[in-house]
Amino acid sequence: MNLKEKIRMVPDYPRQGIRFMDITTLFKDADAFAELVNKMKSKLEGLQINTVVGPEARGFVLGATLAYSIGAGFVPARKPGKLPADVVSREYKFGGGTEELQIHSDAIKPGDKVVVIDDLLATGSTALAACKLVEQLGGEVVAVVFAMEHTMLGGIKNLEGYNVHTVIKF
Amino acid sequence: MNLKEKIRMVPDYPRQGIRFMDITTLFKDADAFAELVNKMKSKLEGLQINTVVGPEARGFVLGATLAYSIGAGFVPARKPGKLPADVVSREYKFGGGTEELQIHSDAIKPGDKVVVIDDLLATGSTALAACKLVEQLGGEVVAVVFAMEHTMLGGIKNLEGYNVHTVIKF
Repeated sequence: MNLKEKIRMVPDYPRQGIRFMDITTLFKDADAFAELVNKMKSKLEGLQINTVVGPEARGFVLGATLAYSIGAGFVPARKPGKLPADVVSREYKFGGGTEELQIHSDAIKPGDKVVVIDDLLATGSTALAACKLVEQLGGEVVAVVFAMEHTMLGGIKNLEGYNVHTVIKF
Repeated sequence: MNLKEKIRMVPDYPRQGIRFMDITTLFKDADAFAELVNKMKSKLEGLQINTVVGPEARGFVLGATLAYSIGAGFVPARKPGKLPADVVSREYKFGGGTEELQIHSDAIKPGDKVVVIDDLLATGSTALAACKLVEQLGGEVVAVVFAMEHTMLGGIKNLEGYNVHTVIKF
């Protein structure tokens, strides 16, 4: 199956000149969704992983599904004000402004083997923030896996030193 | 396994007097997460389902995982401004104010057999909005499944006529 064809290209979204890669058309196709998750899973063969971290909100779709499929736990990385207990936070630059990502302070334990999952590798700044939060709590990021990569943006450079994989490259 | 014990009770969140049921502590426990998903799946035995709808954002965690586990597609129901293509919208009352939920207009086709999944049945208003959006597009809601139910709020009355199931009742 050509997973790339399952992605809907939306012109001028969220603003003029941007071509948005809409992965919801892939998610709603049962066979394509299963194939995507299985291909992401195949990137993790041979690795010991006990926790999957996924950033809000599309990272929840793929991160939680992957966690279930490999028998790991799932930890959401959220925007400020969304997690009810004690958190660690990290600010990062995104789209000309500043964003912040948080995870619960007790969600990662020292020695945890973690994979960070997101839908799209663009600049890589969100995934990098998630990796740094995991490491701040003593976890080890054994892989970072994306469904899609916007290769022209070169975001993979921001993730240098990590074990990065992508299923669908644009 | 007692799944109820895996839920963290957070006092006075999001405001004084509210005891928040934090399901992230269950999600991060691999065995508990798998058991929860498998129990939700068991509620759907014998039903023909091709699509799972999950509201933003915790509904993505359970909805997408369940979709993968039963071989269905996943459709996110999102807050306004988050979906890039043509949408159908529905406003509903929530917490003293008005919220709005949207799904892509082409995400559900007439005759689709749909299950709506969310983490918590409180007033039931978010899940009901999701059901109405599915029906507006010609889909059939064959079940509504929650991880948790806050029974004292009586939200199940708002979902009268639907095939509603909950795994963990408080």
